[in-house]
Amino acid sequence: MIILGLDPSLSSTGWGVIRAEGNRLAHVANGQIKTRPNAPMPERLAALAGAIEAVVSEHRPTAAGAEEVFVNQNPASTLKLAQARGVVLMCMGRAGIAVGEYAPTLVKKAVVGTGGASKDQVHAMVKILLPGVRIAGEDASDALAVAITHAHHLASARRLG
Amino acid sequence: MIILGLDPSLSSTGWGVIRAEGNRLAHVANGQIKTRPNAPMPERLAALAGAIEAVVSEHRPTAAGAEEVFVNQNPASTLKLAQARGVVLMCMGRAGIAVGEYAPTLVKKAVVGTGGASKDQVHAMVKILLPGVRIAGEDASDALAVAITHAHHLASARRLG
Repeated sequence: MIILGLDPSLSSTGWGVIRAEGNRLAHVANGQIKTRPNAPMPERLAALAGAIEAVVSEHRPTAAGAEEVFVNQNPASTLKLAQARGVVLMCMGRAGIAVGEYAPTLVKKAVVGTGGASKDQVHAMVKILLPGVRIAGEDASDALAVAITHAHHLASARRLG
Repeated sequence: MIILGLDPSLSSTGWGVIRAEGNRLAHVANGQIKTRPNAPMPERLAALAGAIEAVVSEHRPTAAGAEEVFVNQNPASTLKLAQARGVVLMCMGRAGIAVGEYAPTLVKKAVVGTGGASKDQVHAMVKILLPGVRIAGEDASDALAVAITHAHHLASARRLG
């Protein structure tokens, strides 16, 4: 099963593709989609959609996981993030890929063991869980962590169901 | 010039197309895009994108206006709204249509004359400004008001420029 993990944002959307066979995980690819900070919003969102569609078309994931968004201290940045997230989810909808949504603390708990884990701890665990991986950056690391979380979730669901 | 007004939301996105020639405005079409409340978010957003693309493809607008979003008392509904808005703006970006963004109070002020105007007052003024229009509902009325606001704005910009 090919799982796509997504950490959406307007300036840098992280993505990571893994292969899950039972409890065995393997890295496939990861990256970060950056949009031009000075471009108009519709253009940035269109660029994001195009890049996500290219990832889907190259790696053909059959399942996806995405980080949840919460309203934080900065309402303007929350709205930008939610707009980017809408575009990313829309791409999944068009490709017919169901999306599992995970709070950032749940992802940290699933990968590191504690919801308060740092970005560095997540990065380190992703490297252990996906031997040989070269990670494009912090957002890609988070996206791979989401993919791993979704793989665990799907495996548990299968065991229970 | 064909102007598309947009009042994005996840449950019911209003849209309205007008023709602007100098100071003369005429109604072209309007409607509301509803998505299935119980469908998964990616599916709803994909349906919204498809419907917006159909409007663009049928009416070929060359400019668009959209209502701005603000974080309100209900963070969850704000996030849904922003996700829908992201998809709508992305469609404009893909179609190469520049988008003017207007706060709801500015739209009311432009159309009715006061930023505190009610939905009914906006609706009544839209009917006066676009003779013969049949309005699909409150969201379509708001979208037509945004299109009118954008037409006024573009006309002023031309006079000044």
